[in-house]
Amino acid sequence: MEHVDVAIVGAGYAGLATALDLTAAGRQVVVLEAGDRVGGRVWTRAEDGVLVDHGGQWVGPAQTAFLRWADRFGCARFPTYDAGTHLELWPGEAPLPHVSGEHPDAHDARGYDDLVARLDELAAQVDPEHPEACASLAEWDSRTFDDWLRATTGSPDALRRMRLVVQGLWACEPREVSLFHVLFYVAAGGGLDPLLGTLGGAQDSRFTDGADGPARAAAALLGDAVRLRSPVTTVAWDDDGATLTTATGTVRARRVVVTGTPPAQARIAFSPLLPAARRRWLARSPMGDVAKVHVTYATPFWRARGLSGQLTTYDGSAVAYTFDNSPADASRGVVAAFVYGDDYRSWSAQPAEARRKAVLDVLGVLGEEAARPLAYHERLWPEELWAEGAYAAVPTPGTWLAHAGGRREPVGPLHWAGTETAGIGNGYIDGAIRSGERAAAEVLASWTG
Amino acid sequence: MEHVDVAIVGAGYAGLATALDLTAAGRQVVVLEAGDRVGGRVWTRAEDGVLVDHGGQWVGPAQTAFLRWADRFGCARFPTYDAGTHLELWPGEAPLPHVSGEHPDAHDARGYDDLVARLDELAAQVDPEHPEACASLAEWDSRTFDDWLRATTGSPDALRRMRLVVQGLWACEPREVSLFHVLFYVAAGGGLDPLLGTLGGAQDSRFTDGADGPARAAAALLGDAVRLRSPVTTVAWDDDGATLTTATGTVRARRVVVTGTPPAQARIAFSPLLPAARRRWLARSPMGDVAKVHVTYATPFWRARGLSGQLTTYDGSAVAYTFDNSPADASRGVVAAFVYGDDYRSWSAQPAEARRKAVLDVLGVLGEEAARPLAYHERLWPEELWAEGAYAAVPTPGTWLAHAGGRREPVGPLHWAGTETAGIGNGYIDGAIRSGERAAAEVLASWTG
Repeated sequence: MEHVDVAIVGAGYAGLATALDLTAAGRQVVVLEAGDRVGGRVWTRAEDGVLVDHGGQWVGPAQTAFLRWADRFGCARFPTYDAGTHLELWPGEAPLPHVSGEHPDAHDARGYDDLVARLDELAAQVDPEHPEACASLAEWDSRTFDDWLRATTGSPDALRRMRLVVQGLWACEPREVSLFHVLFYVAAGGGLDPLLGTLGGAQDSRFTDGADGPARAAAALLGDAVRLRSPVTTVAWDDDGATLTTATGTVRARRVVVTGTPPAQARIAFSPLLPAARRRWLARSPMGDVAKVHVTYATPFWRARGLSGQLTTYDGSAVAYTFDNSPADASRGVVAAFVYGDDYRSWSAQPAEARRKAVLDVLGVLGEEAARPLAYHERLWPEELWAEGAYAAVPTPGTWLAHAGGRREPVGPLHWAGTETAGIGNGYIDGAIRSGERAAAEVLASWTG
Repeated sequence: MEHVDVAIVGAGYAGLATALDLTAAGRQVVVLEAGDRVGGRVWTRAEDGVLVDHGGQWVGPAQTAFLRWADRFGCARFPTYDAGTHLELWPGEAPLPHVSGEHPDAHDARGYDDLVARLDELAAQVDPEHPEACASLAEWDSRTFDDWLRATTGSPDALRRMRLVVQGLWACEPREVSLFHVLFYVAAGGGLDPLLGTLGGAQDSRFTDGADGPARAAAALLGDAVRLRSPVTTVAWDDDGATLTTATGTVRARRVVVTGTPPAQARIAFSPLLPAARRRWLARSPMGDVAKVHVTYATPFWRARGLSGQLTTYDGSAVAYTFDNSPADASRGVVAAFVYGDDYRSWSAQPAEARRKAVLDVLGVLGEEAARPLAYHERLWPEELWAEGAYAAVPTPGTWLAHAGGRREPVGPLHWAGTETAGIGNGYIDGAIRSGERAAAEVLASWTG
């Protein structure tokens, strides 16, 4: 049996951030990662000669914890391609053009703006570091966001626009999330427009060498402390510490920091059983449903036509959004397409060929070249063994109200990190890093000799 | 490795029903039970000389599958004690008396009745065997029951009454369940009044020798096929069957029927991963929060005072309901008290002595003898290792709409039973038995040589 100060479960950004801070404080750590790579829900791979981010990929100016890492490890960024005309696809109409910073003057963009303003106003009443203290928690967490939307606007187009926002931010449908979680998350992200924005917003920049670069650099620093292919199966804990069993051995630690998605954590048998509040929080935090598809062409042919490659679809197609995800040097043209929620459920049930056709059909508005890509790669996050969904877990209605005590309150020697436990930056890489730093500080503060 | 036709996971009523039917059809089965007893969420124990049902206990005339078992195994029943006056406790008032079949003429019992009538009317539009076919599924599953209640009535007392109904039937709060699940469940139980009724309703009768009697009799018939203390840790499956690993050995089976609560099923590592629909259904089906407390006295002293022992509390106390749970011969006086939902969360966080005091204080209205019981036994179902809650899992809003395909659709050689998969009788022992019979029929129908 190996003895360490702190065992960290998961080598995503949260686990790595925990490990870096604890190591810097002189503690001996191991990071037990179930999979065969670091980065968690951030995953960069070369696919047919192009570096592709299958998971999280963007960084924005408000994400200062992530930017600090990127700078520390010298990971270069470049602006997300945002020039030219974006297109909205509505049923039975020509594509509706607009540019960044402006809405098209159609389909009740004004009614949508009113909803955004109203949500930002309500979100200002939620302190993202102390969401439980919100005076309207009971009211807002007792209703679905869908219900609030329908009670707030009678505009079908404003509802359609807001449904796509929910898909884009939480990878679910408005009925699956409470008004309160929406407001918390908006508060944690600094407002709805910053969350949705490209340049200057949460989608501002990409990483030249992939978004897992800082994670790989951190893992290199940690060296042998990071153990891949080591899923933790049992954690036997008491007041003095915990014994963790993995496929590769047994570790005894004074403290444990558990990261990872709720489904991954559910596979760990804790003994004794965790307190009900923790189990309830996890059991009521299902993952979002999203596929991210990359389609590669010889060139970003749409740019020459004045198009940005950014599509937003309201016409019933499976794809909700696309972005120009070409490499910094535009040596290839790459489109990233996102499929979410109900659309994900029906699209993912189709054969591979039909899925591909559905995506390429949407891209047809960029030009007839769209039908003949060099490569097509899809990543269905609900099928990933150690994530079982993305981007993050979404607490169901009533969960914040009744079970928030289980979100990140330490249990004996056990501490909790992961983007789901973050205040500022919740749901983002930035939040994952902040959560790891918070957990490391918690562990150090709890140390008594 | 042991080879069988069918491996059944869980020896609750669903697993035992599956095993009985398959054995009768000539199939060789094993029943792999994680715990050290059969019965699952039905659990009879002698506590200080009195047989106590810590879990499910009642049977009603509509529960014909359960009654058939009870008759087959000769398990005697007796009517639930329902004579005398029930009391409602409201803040700052004398206890409000009424008798079975009549509401007190106060606190808007009429407004409550209107809600019941409206719910029964809507529930008539749900076919419990084909709930997905309901024309209003999308609308009704997109809102919380809490939201529907507030939109339907402005009466605070009618809301309080209906909140207690939700606690009593689903062990949760109105914000945690969708309008659709409420309607489905009411349809599956034959109407709201039958579900809530004592004599003639779902609480009609009790078992002289405990509600797990039929389960124990079934297990005795199955003999060595039932393996206790055999938690299944992995299920490796393919088109031909599955290999199940337990703490006690390995079993190869042509078919598998998995029963048990979603948290128990989440601890099984399926390889390959189950389809997303199944994982999503389970991940979005948290268990109810309930404690069942038994308080034993030398005699049912309240009966002599014309009281039934049935209390319903609206005064903020932790206990929601009590029943006279004395043995058939009234050789002792026993009260069963139920604590649910938000009340459960705050009550269970208190020390044992404070929990006991909270319960005994409520019983004070039965007489000053209530303060001096012979025995006090509580069962906190969220703390039970293989249940992690009771009575049943409650799908969160939106789950029926998006994930119903994962409720009981077979996956290769894997079939699903358990009361959560039932139509008629969903949530009850009756539903568990029906689900096992349905799963057995499915397995037999799928057999090809």
